[in-house]
Amino acid sequence: MAPPIPTVESNGVDLSNKKAAVTNRGVQCNPVLLENKTSIRGVIGELLKTTNGEKPLISLGIGDASSFPCFQKGKERFAAAVADAVSSSSFDCYAPSYGFPSARRAVAEYLSRDIERGIREGDVFLTVGGTQAIHVCMTVLASPGANVLLPQPGFSPYVAACELYGIEARFYHLQPHHGWELDLAQVSSLVDANTVGIVIINPNNPCGAVFSSEHLHQIAKTARELNIPIIADELYGHMVYGESKFVPLASFAHLTPVITIGALSKRWMVPGWRLGWMAICDPHETFTQVKVAIEMLLNVTSGPASVIQAAVPSILSDSHEEFHKNVLTILESSAETLHTRIDQIEALQCYSKPQGSMFTMVEVNATLLVGIENDMDFARKLMKEESVLVLPGFVIGLKNWVRIFFGVSPDLLSEACDRIESFCKRRHPSNSTC
Amino acid sequence: MAPPIPTVESNGVDLSNKKAAVTNRGVQCNPVLLENKTSIRGVIGELLKTTNGEKPLISLGIGDASSFPCFQKGKERFAAAVADAVSSSSFDCYAPSYGFPSARRAVAEYLSRDIERGIREGDVFLTVGGTQAIHVCMTVLASPGANVLLPQPGFSPYVAACELYGIEARFYHLQPHHGWELDLAQVSSLVDANTVGIVIINPNNPCGAVFSSEHLHQIAKTARELNIPIIADELYGHMVYGESKFVPLASFAHLTPVITIGALSKRWMVPGWRLGWMAICDPHETFTQVKVAIEMLLNVTSGPASVIQAAVPSILSDSHEEFHKNVLTILESSAETLHTRIDQIEALQCYSKPQGSMFTMVEVNATLLVGIENDMDFARKLMKEESVLVLPGFVIGLKNWVRIFFGVSPDLLSEACDRIESFCKRRHPSNSTC
Repeated sequence: MAPPIPTVESNGVDLSNKKAAVTNRGVQCNPVLLENKTSIRGVIGELLKTTNGEKPLISLGIGDASSFPCFQKGKERFAAAVADAVSSSSFDCYAPSYGFPSARRAVAEYLSRDIERGIREGDVFLTVGGTQAIHVCMTVLASPGANVLLPQPGFSPYVAACELYGIEARFYHLQPHHGWELDLAQVSSLVDANTVGIVIINPNNPCGAVFSSEHLHQIAKTARELNIPIIADELYGHMVYGESKFVPLASFAHLTPVITIGALSKRWMVPGWRLGWMAICDPHETFTQVKVAIEMLLNVTSGPASVIQAAVPSILSDSHEEFHKNVLTILESSAETLHTRIDQIEALQCYSKPQGSMFTMVEVNATLLVGIENDMDFARKLMKEESVLVLPGFVIGLKNWVRIFFGVSPDLLSEACDRIESFCKRRHPSNSTC
Repeated sequence: MAPPIPTVESNGVDLSNKKAAVTNRGVQCNPVLLENKTSIRGVIGELLKTTNGEKPLISLGIGDASSFPCFQKGKERFAAAVADAVSSSSFDCYAPSYGFPSARRAVAEYLSRDIERGIREGDVFLTVGGTQAIHVCMTVLASPGANVLLPQPGFSPYVAACELYGIEARFYHLQPHHGWELDLAQVSSLVDANTVGIVIINPNNPCGAVFSSEHLHQIAKTARELNIPIIADELYGHMVYGESKFVPLASFAHLTPVITIGALSKRWMVPGWRLGWMAICDPHETFTQVKVAIEMLLNVTSGPASVIQAAVPSILSDSHEEFHKNVLTILESSAETLHTRIDQIEALQCYSKPQGSMFTMVEVNATLLVGIENDMDFARKLMKEESVLVLPGFVIGLKNWVRIFFGVSPDLLSEACDRIESFCKRRHPSNSTC
């Protein structure tokens, strides 16, 4: 079957089933949700349909390392903490709107380890994964006419949340040739009186960059000058290796208020447990109104499961260093492998080796790939021919790049590299078989 | 300390801490969240501060029966199912956006037991408790200018969701003197071309009513005539006793589309686990657009914890009849106790004995209570003097009534009735000591 003809709007994604007819009963519906939206999960779902099933699937498409045996060493203790909470039947009750005090305190203490000015229990709010924290931030900041600065490439749920809550998303560029750092002059040029914040993702998804303390300081100083708070997405906090060091943006909260977003999903590799948090770091207490709004919102929405919350103090304790060390050792090696292997493929380019998170961005030179039009096309055909799933960059704001996840077992990553290499070789213009 | 002076706007609730000053950095904030909003959780939190601590607290304020030993018989099997899922470490991964297929299938089969035309796995979406299902419904139905019909008294999260997503809430009355049934002529008078749905809560929170099949049929026929879908809040589905019978509104989905909302929270008494669902019952497939919109939304929001989802097939199986039977036996007896006891108190009136859910509405005759101005005043002073927590009706749309939860252990309910009785006697105009 011939692939569907790509359209400009959809970048080749078949969205025809999303174009529902208006119902014959005229039921009205939120128009924001019915436009041709692309989401990471939607595009991944689309791509998964295209496998021919000849080779076993290797998914480098989404950031979920939870199932690989190589990362399990010591992880059973997280499960034991939850199983204990469930079996005690002491946590079947509703949790308080902002989370159990013990869990909030544990997050506050965890975050305070790395910053001079500590974070208090009352500044922490538990959320249904990092995703709810994003939605809460965007809902709370959604004043009429508001705009927010988002990274490009970035994390598409921010864009989706902006659309849902009527905030204008303005995109600043991460610079591939400068270690994916921000161009702060460009950032400043985007700001006006209605700018309500800037989202900084560090360690960075999707680029794998870890910003230096100096760069973060510059960012905070710029935000202070621009009079905007920072939403610090630190889902990959402490997931750094090699020479790099993770510096929480809350270290610079004396310059401008910082809302730190985190979760168990990545560092503890339990994304399905949906336990996230947001912490308001606001030493000058200039952000009181936002905190009140967060509380009002959380009073009428659902929080994370009580039995997971109950395990947070144990999971965030400093007694799991062996688990974390093992994970980082594997990730560092995998980052090296992936970078080296991609470097050997003429059509692909990865400008800097990942220093953190579990992702890297790879540029696709379609002129060196016969029959490939763009990133979606690359992802679809790679999936079809090699059963390797990668995320096309258009979904996260960078066309003709792909995001590759490397938090998989090393042998699987190696196999994936083999398949990507063979796919690109087969399609090289000098190879007439394609 | 004298109680704060009640204001008209707040009905006596101290909201002063919510009136945050505009920050000196001018951070903008969603104005909808900063108006003087009252939520069940907010008011309960306020009331809890007023206890004098002399007597142990008896909370009849929120619907959480999970902690009472009398309801535990057989419940350990739900916990075992979750503990097994956690310990297997097979469910640490992200769950699919709409839920694990096995859990969706289990909900579909559970709901299909009671209706002629079954519900399919693909029509079920798992949510973070019933609350997220409410938010999803309201987000999806939020077309420009939309209005939705809500019961009064009702469940305030619906109102909060309407405010958040810009839907106008229009209230239809439940009639205390007619078994809390709807006045369908009044319902019709509220509808216009922008009405996107009607919310029906059955078995009813807060009134304890269970609508007959005939009344539900009338409701569905009216909705069909008015060309609006039904949001059927069946959180208390099957929690009925005595002569009453639970009939799911989906039985009438051939007349108009029905979105059924449910959760483990109430019937299985694990509200903290945050596992809910919505099911689209739409045999004529006239609701396709809404389903697409739900899918789009769930692709960018967080779902319930994977390890709880994994236990759903076991929890929803029909092998827990002993647990459910025990719960209903106690609730039936407690409904009887509460009704009889309230009936003996001159200042209070409960027009019909609860037949379902775990709540009843009680009218407060302030003229027979010296020093009591209204429902909030009643709740605050009852809390202060007797440490009995009830929900003032103004929060759920019925001033000078209170909602009383009776899903507590029978001895505690009896003790609460004693205290309420003694409070009302003490304040009776014929008693000069007050």
